[in-house]
Amino acid sequence: MHPIYDHSKSREQYLRASKVIPSGVYGHLGPAEGCFIPVSAYPQFSEKAKGPYFWDIDGNRYIDYMCAYGPNILGYNDPDVDEAAAKQREKGDCITAPSTVMIDFAELLVDTVASADWAFFAKNGNDVTSIAIRAARTHTHRKKIVFFKGYYHGISPWCQKIDYAGVLEEEVCNNLYVDWNDFEQLELVFEEHKHEIAAVIGQPYMHGNFMDNQLPEQDFWQKVRKLCDDEGTVLIIDDVRAGFRLDLKGSDHYFGFKADLICFCKALANGYNVSALCGQEHMKNAVSALSVTGSYWLSAVPFAAGIACIEKLKRLDAPKLLIDKGIALTDGLKAEAGKYGYDLRVSGVPSLFYLRLADDPSLRLHQAWVAECQKRGVYFTNHHNHFINAALSDEDIRETIEIAGEAFAALRQQGR
Amino acid sequence: MHPIYDHSKSREQYLRASKVIPSGVYGHLGPAEGCFIPVSAYPQFSEKAKGPYFWDIDGNRYIDYMCAYGPNILGYNDPDVDEAAAKQREKGDCITAPSTVMIDFAELLVDTVASADWAFFAKNGNDVTSIAIRAARTHTHRKKIVFFKGYYHGISPWCQKIDYAGVLEEEVCNNLYVDWNDFEQLELVFEEHKHEIAAVIGQPYMHGNFMDNQLPEQDFWQKVRKLCDDEGTVLIIDDVRAGFRLDLKGSDHYFGFKADLICFCKALANGYNVSALCGQEHMKNAVSALSVTGSYWLSAVPFAAGIACIEKLKRLDAPKLLIDKGIALTDGLKAEAGKYGYDLRVSGVPSLFYLRLADDPSLRLHQAWVAECQKRGVYFTNHHNHFINAALSDEDIRETIEIAGEAFAALRQQGR
Repeated sequence: MHPIYDHSKSREQYLRASKVIPSGVYGHLGPAEGCFIPVSAYPQFSEKAKGPYFWDIDGNRYIDYMCAYGPNILGYNDPDVDEAAAKQREKGDCITAPSTVMIDFAELLVDTVASADWAFFAKNGNDVTSIAIRAARTHTHRKKIVFFKGYYHGISPWCQKIDYAGVLEEEVCNNLYVDWNDFEQLELVFEEHKHEIAAVIGQPYMHGNFMDNQLPEQDFWQKVRKLCDDEGTVLIIDDVRAGFRLDLKGSDHYFGFKADLICFCKALANGYNVSALCGQEHMKNAVSALSVTGSYWLSAVPFAAGIACIEKLKRLDAPKLLIDKGIALTDGLKAEAGKYGYDLRVSGVPSLFYLRLADDPSLRLHQAWVAECQKRGVYFTNHHNHFINAALSDEDIRETIEIAGEAFAALRQQGR
Repeated sequence: MHPIYDHSKSREQYLRASKVIPSGVYGHLGPAEGCFIPVSAYPQFSEKAKGPYFWDIDGNRYIDYMCAYGPNILGYNDPDVDEAAAKQREKGDCITAPSTVMIDFAELLVDTVASADWAFFAKNGNDVTSIAIRAARTHTHRKKIVFFKGYYHGISPWCQKIDYAGVLEEEVCNNLYVDWNDFEQLELVFEEHKHEIAAVIGQPYMHGNFMDNQLPEQDFWQKVRKLCDDEGTVLIIDDVRAGFRLDLKGSDHYFGFKADLICFCKALANGYNVSALCGQEHMKNAVSALSVTGSYWLSAVPFAAGIACIEKLKRLDAPKLLIDKGIALTDGLKAEAGKYGYDLRVSGVPSLFYLRLADDPSLRLHQAWVAECQKRGVYFTNHHNHFINAALSDEDIRETIEIAGEAFAALRQQGR
């Protein structure tokens, strides 16, 4: 039996943070964005991280299935990536003129990603999805954008909703929404807005929060691709979350089609701060025409880290490795749930698995189970996909399944 | 006499970059954003940097007055900042839960910046100016924003112009523009748009490109502050460029007023990738209400670097140091210009000095002089303010003035 964790230092520090930081801890752990992560059950602050683990400030170790919400793909503090970054840092990072390591990284992405004839670097996923939308509007001289319901493409107003604080109706009035996998609905929207649709933007499959993740139906993307071609619409794939965990050639390649523009961020450099917009040749001029830059966009260290990361992912054949680990883990979790009479549903690609306990309309049973896992050292989250990293060992997977079982046993003891 | 630099490797690499990166090198060195920086006269790629210098890939050394367009405030690869960053990196950087070093940094900014009761961190200047605008709209339930003509607040559509590629009229239709230092015009705009103006956003003084930089007139900010108070409008200061080079307490404090929200980025962590929105207590809830985050926003290394940077800036009394160096330099440059019969106009705060040769309506004489400086190892730029860093020595300043003289002599030889 695993001991039950105490988070009292985390809670103290959260109160301290709340005094000087709006919402204390923001992002996924904060009240606005969090997938119902209760402060009482989760650690709020980390002390250190290594490989597949992080330690919170109360000294508890977690087998981490969130991977910093994606960036950690090789394991925290990967020695190869860190060495390449340190070597570049000695020379310089953020300099008046960029390093040619930027070109090396662009060439590597062009060699690696099937739909990439070029690469353009920024800092956040939101930077590159926003640039993609502007490039599509510039390329087509059109305004409207089609989204698939359940999407997340960043934090800028264009991709948020009118009921979000500080978002104006003017900023979202050119947005159109269709159901995922519903090609007929998409065709109807194209008919209604003939010659008006600049872009369709989608994640490679529906890995939205608070829903079972859904793969594309047979030929869905192929039909969308053809429709976009026929109508002169730019097809943008937001591979910020799934990128390099399905296919090093891009998640569009995994599903057998080619995006016009594809957005990467999280797994690009194992946590070093860089994002990339890649695309086909015919979109290059539109990107060149934009007035976009940022203080640190041309910094050299993240490029050096990105090169080391992608090269190591290739050596490891990482997507297969991560998917295999994900299958082993989720098969074990499902079996363990069954032993205690629970039905654990697993969806999405296994390297990014999404979990839900069946027969739980209020979601509270699932949340209680995740909290019991947390308390014993397995960092799952409630209603967001998870992430596998390459440092996760068979022993880590075995221990995770064991802890999951203890968590199910605890639920039974609570009479749930 | 200083030797004339050759940039042939830079030019070769620029061609290589152009194949795989839209516009080759973007940002300030690119064709879209550059202040008329000709590829032939400027190095396009750096090899390394140290203190006040960087070296290009042709082996030329530059005394650098652009400081990576601001981030380099202590000197490149400052040992104190790098050591703090390296220590944090060993523990971890981008982790599922943040480090408490984020709270330490927020508390330090609250202690340092006069108008800061809290701090909220992101990655680019554009992130925090955008968050400020959304917070102002949330706080006031109003839409309209007043800008001062000549402004630059980032790359998002809301702060660009309708003739910029990919910007929609819907995205800028709530923008109002007034002339810098014209308080009566601002009052008129407030009367015309009674109860509609969410925010006034301004740089602490007008440090726009292609214009002599202009300080605020006597009482200008005090009158703006009072008008905003009377009308319930949020006053946002964009201190991304000038921050910590005028006053460690904030550039609003330097000019004797208090912003509601103040945006920092460039000089915050000596090149480590972080930006910060700070503000007064009454704006904290509005920021908490926003749905904003990013993959690397809570990374620990830049916070550790930021703490070391701000603490060192305090030990050095950096703004005074930088302003004194700027005065010594620009006094010397003006005198040197005079020796050759040229009239060099210097504007802005000396730590961010802007240069212009008088009687040069086409701007070509100025551009020719800057190119001659570049060719001899002084990195100025044409129509953008410059930046002083603390590592710049008296000997560097002396050498700069000497090279500037040689550049003026070269112009005379060319009969200009």
